[in-house]
Amino acid sequence: MKLIEKHRSFRGYQEVYRHYSKVNNCDMQFAVYSPDNMLDVPVLYFLSGITCTEQNFIQKSGFQKFASEYQIAVIVPDTSPRGKDIPDVEDYKLGLGAGFYLNANQEPWSTHYNMYDYITLELPELVENKFEFSKTKIGILGHSMGGGGAIQCALKNDLYKTISAFSPICSLHQSEFAKDAIKNYLNNNIEKINLYDPINLILQSKKKFNDIKIDVGVNDEFIKDLYIKDFKDACTKVGQKLSIQMHEGYDHGYYFIHSFIEDHIKFHATAFKNL
Amino acid sequence: MKLIEKHRSFRGYQEVYRHYSKVNNCDMQFAVYSPDNMLDVPVLYFLSGITCTEQNFIQKSGFQKFASEYQIAVIVPDTSPRGKDIPDVEDYKLGLGAGFYLNANQEPWSTHYNMYDYITLELPELVENKFEFSKTKIGILGHSMGGGGAIQCALKNDLYKTISAFSPICSLHQSEFAKDAIKNYLNNNIEKINLYDPINLILQSKKKFNDIKIDVGVNDEFIKDLYIKDFKDACTKVGQKLSIQMHEGYDHGYYFIHSFIEDHIKFHATAFKNL
Repeated sequence: MKLIEKHRSFRGYQEVYRHYSKVNNCDMQFAVYSPDNMLDVPVLYFLSGITCTEQNFIQKSGFQKFASEYQIAVIVPDTSPRGKDIPDVEDYKLGLGAGFYLNANQEPWSTHYNMYDYITLELPELVENKFEFSKTKIGILGHSMGGGGAIQCALKNDLYKTISAFSPICSLHQSEFAKDAIKNYLNNNIEKINLYDPINLILQSKKKFNDIKIDVGVNDEFIKDLYIKDFKDACTKVGQKLSIQMHEGYDHGYYFIHSFIEDHIKFHATAFKNL
Repeated sequence: MKLIEKHRSFRGYQEVYRHYSKVNNCDMQFAVYSPDNMLDVPVLYFLSGITCTEQNFIQKSGFQKFASEYQIAVIVPDTSPRGKDIPDVEDYKLGLGAGFYLNANQEPWSTHYNMYDYITLELPELVENKFEFSKTKIGILGHSMGGGGAIQCALKNDLYKTISAFSPICSLHQSEFAKDAIKNYLNNNIEKINLYDPINLILQSKKKFNDIKIDVGVNDEFIKDLYIKDFKDACTKVGQKLSIQMHEGYDHGYYFIHSFIEDHIKFHATAFKNL
């Protein structure tokens, strides 16, 4: 594992590492923010949206101020495998930048596009071995594709104790954003899609969270493709507490995220204190 | 003047405008952050560093949180003329992205590279006519090339009541960053360079500020090309109060700026209250 960036940021360090991923069969990068006195601090994973790398959230959200204040480490993975040998197409919703945090089950995708195993198994193991963060106080959040990714990862893995999302894509079955991904990665197989679909997982999962926090901009240009109401209805049906805030005037992008990232860091920090 | 971006950000709006610049003879873009209840709020101009556009500071610094809290509008211009007909070379320190906030006096540069007049005359007039911000509480700050630019603009124009800088290039005569610019834009003419050189201007200027705030990272990879000590000596010589803070561990980039932007907004806001 090779350190390729290190910057002092607030009272901590923003770093970026590069390493070989066994599950994706290629080099991957991820970012780590460590507050000073990092020993045993809780860890948050942030999953980014389509077209992003590990850089967008660390450069644009301003989360470091709050991670430093609330004493939380933040891990930001890339959104897909990368490299000149990795299959890709001219479609921003498929291939590079659009791994959808699932394991592809057909070629040419399945050799490299195994982001689900990367996020939930390989990366947490790397982080646990490399850094002296808490091994139990672990949460996950994300934005858009990564918001849906965070929810589906959280529901299936005891590793994650807390969950929140900005503008999550809640339906892989219905969202235009996921159409090419479920066709190409999963051959439109309904059972396979159900394994990663937030709405289906909420309905099926025995795991419950004390609360799921979701923030959405009322002026989000993609709001119809998020299926927030369907997710809310599913939560109501199974008795999963959900705290949705709709924010007048805000859109889908990083200006929305940076305006409310403090609330998310605080939400996880408060929940970690009660663990 | 055409609005090309508008995003809700904290309690205000981040906008970007495009307009024809008479002094640069081309279209230019600039960004405006307006806090809610913008009537008569003070205005800060932020001048960016080499390679930047109006986008870097508005996407990466997180200033909007503090501009909203302290109720200040922020204008962020581009760093050079732009367009396919604008002279450029393969040198990041000259041409596009490196206007150095001066008026070039030889071709092919002088038709378009008149950033000094753009920043100090054309843009303030546009802003005054378009927005209902304060017409007297106006300050300026900048980073690197833009830090030096902010200082030289502030020293020669009564328009600016307050001044601060991150990691400013204080010597056009000596800095490697400015070598190609002073040769090409100003034909290495010492008198012309003196018109824009922060150290020379501090020594010559009759205008004094209550304080000049400068922050520099101790681990700034370009610190030798900033000539901070020479600037400090010049301020001491003429009795200009200067508050320099050196920050252990921080480098030259936006992770440094975002860590301390609140201090700068506060510095200007406090000074505006006493105007």
